[in-house]
Amino acid sequence: MTRRLSLFGATGSVGQSTLDLVRRDGDTWRVTVLTAHSDVAELARLAREFRPDIAVIADAARHDELAAALAGTGIEAAAGGDALVEAAERPTDLVMAAIVGTAGLAPTMAALAAGHDVALANKEALVSAGDLMMAAARQSGATILPVDSEHNAIFQCLAGGRIEQVRRIILTASGGPFRTMSADDMARATPAQAVAHPNWSMGAKISVDSATMMNKGLELIEAHHLFPVGLDRIEILVHPQSVIHSLVEYVDCSTLAQLGSPDMRIPIASALAWPQRMVTPCTPLDLAHIARLDFEAPDEVRFPATALCRAAVAEGGARPAQLNAANEVAVAAFLAGRIAFPAIVDTVRRVMNADAPSRPRSLQDIFSVDAAARAAAQHFVDICEHA
Amino acid sequence: MTRRLSLFGATGSVGQSTLDLVRRDGDTWRVTVLTAHSDVAELARLAREFRPDIAVIADAARHDELAAALAGTGIEAAAGGDALVEAAERPTDLVMAAIVGTAGLAPTMAALAAGHDVALANKEALVSAGDLMMAAARQSGATILPVDSEHNAIFQCLAGGRIEQVRRIILTASGGPFRTMSADDMARATPAQAVAHPNWSMGAKISVDSATMMNKGLELIEAHHLFPVGLDRIEILVHPQSVIHSLVEYVDCSTLAQLGSPDMRIPIASALAWPQRMVTPCTPLDLAHIARLDFEAPDEVRFPATALCRAAVAEGGARPAQLNAANEVAVAAFLAGRIAFPAIVDTVRRVMNADAPSRPRSLQDIFSVDAAARAAAQHFVDICEHA
Repeated sequence: MTRRLSLFGATGSVGQSTLDLVRRDGDTWRVTVLTAHSDVAELARLAREFRPDIAVIADAARHDELAAALAGTGIEAAAGGDALVEAAERPTDLVMAAIVGTAGLAPTMAALAAGHDVALANKEALVSAGDLMMAAARQSGATILPVDSEHNAIFQCLAGGRIEQVRRIILTASGGPFRTMSADDMARATPAQAVAHPNWSMGAKISVDSATMMNKGLELIEAHHLFPVGLDRIEILVHPQSVIHSLVEYVDCSTLAQLGSPDMRIPIASALAWPQRMVTPCTPLDLAHIARLDFEAPDEVRFPATALCRAAVAEGGARPAQLNAANEVAVAAFLAGRIAFPAIVDTVRRVMNADAPSRPRSLQDIFSVDAAARAAAQHFVDICEHA
Repeated sequence: MTRRLSLFGATGSVGQSTLDLVRRDGDTWRVTVLTAHSDVAELARLAREFRPDIAVIADAARHDELAAALAGTGIEAAAGGDALVEAAERPTDLVMAAIVGTAGLAPTMAALAAGHDVALANKEALVSAGDLMMAAARQSGATILPVDSEHNAIFQCLAGGRIEQVRRIILTASGGPFRTMSADDMARATPAQAVAHPNWSMGAKISVDSATMMNKGLELIEAHHLFPVGLDRIEILVHPQSVIHSLVEYVDCSTLAQLGSPDMRIPIASALAWPQRMVTPCTPLDLAHIARLDFEAPDEVRFPATALCRAAVAEGGARPAQLNAANEVAVAAFLAGRIAFPAIVDTVRRVMNADAPSRPRSLQDIFSVDAAARAAAQHFVDICEHA
């Protein structure tokens, strides 16, 4: 049976991996929507290959360029934020939400509100707007299939069980490139050191988030929304090899874990095929070759980001959106050489201390909090730089 | 809702652990059958506590003793093999088959044939009579819930999936007390060395099976019957800490694992409560404290037992029954100081080489093969001892 797939963020890393899997399993899938941020040429190339009903470029100014590139194909060309939302509402069997950043919020929300099952790779959807997204999914009956390797692991470990039977969710963390570094050395850490992630190849922003462990804190926020077991039942465990992607402990003290090679196609395939499984060309895990897995408790003194995230989601409302926006500005400032490594989390804390945003009722409220937090973070970065 | 439980082998280790859990969850359970091998006093004590409809002592000669011990309780007293079978056929919601050895075969088969779900702790049922047991379960629609920690782990990892989606089953093995011992040292190993199992406290016979890794080979045979993925898709992985109890790799290269403290109440609880979960008083896993898990490929040169088991189940029929019976005799001879450690597996191999049993059609055929293999093994032990 053919399944319709709407792919938002086709030219990014998750989008490319998704299309790699779809390409290998072409009889199963019919891609109906493809979108990209600004790369018209690549979007047009992919559209010509996968023949969606519509291709949408997020940059409204590039409508004519896309229309020209698709001339004669019969594929509808559209552009801009409203077009993304309209495309997300179209009938489909699965939406892959792989747009990076807050640009993904509106189409993801539209897809959930329309009752579509969503394979969710857009972190901001749950970090910044978790309450709204989960409420939309509950109301429409949409299922959220997490694509992030940790949350996908937890989802898989819950597949045969029930959330009421969970005693603990254990989110594993690589510990990042500074896991064994002293606080003094961290104070002098350079962007080049921070972007050298031990297990996964990924972008600079997320690599720095891994170095601060803010990434794990943001995942804690996501896990809290996805798996309502109570925040105090979600723990973080440092596991440098990143082979176990997370664990679920049940009330009988039986623990299930999901393991895999560091290949995003594994969790993507899990989300695409759910509740079935699809064959992937990934490398099977060879534990005898890996030989050893290590575990240690997280050090919240050297890595205060996770505690900050826990506090933010415990307070709820727009706090996580504020934290996330401030973090983005602070990370950019660190990467630009403007602030020191420990100042990333300090900046986020200052922004949170300076203003307590009111509870958001809409994505528009989230965007306002986001903008205010960015401005505040920029302000603290400027002060910090000139101090 | 109350569930009826028939417990076969109430005074053994698994029986005791089962009753410990039932005692803590008394509102859920009504014990309807209790049986024991020969300990009348303990069986009567348990019967007075749990008030089953019937108590059965396997030793037929002790009927009157049991009847006297239960006088005035209103609990029926019965004795002997036929009484065990009759008790296994009685209406119930779950049969816990925890009789040790071939004595468990007939009641387990009767329970499966009657369509009862069976929590299976009796290893011989699948090792010696796997084809017959599985056929009985298929025909009646009974579900087998494995209690052995490895098979229970696999069962749990399959709960959210389907057997057709499995790429590999990975049975973990501690490697036993001789994991790092040279072949020369193993040739001189004493019974005292062999019974010192690193992770689980257990009886002498099963400890020696762990030292030869015959235990893992027998579990391979069980796994082959329980999880029909094809023998070449079942692998053994040495994992000295025995924290991961086994793993299932799916076609998408996603691997699920079950982990837990070395407490048999965890898999027992899983089987009792399935498809729900029940609270246990077990110790939750503390991976940060455990700190490290190791893995290595099994060494089939120093530990030839697993390959022998694989060959036996590949050939099928009564070969595994023959192997199992020969192994019991050889282990007893080793424990009695009559043969050297490597002679255990040698004896089994000689028995298998000496006679190819025909395909069994009934438990009676299995018992014949079992008896012949024991006699042959005894013969080789005698030769070996006097050589």
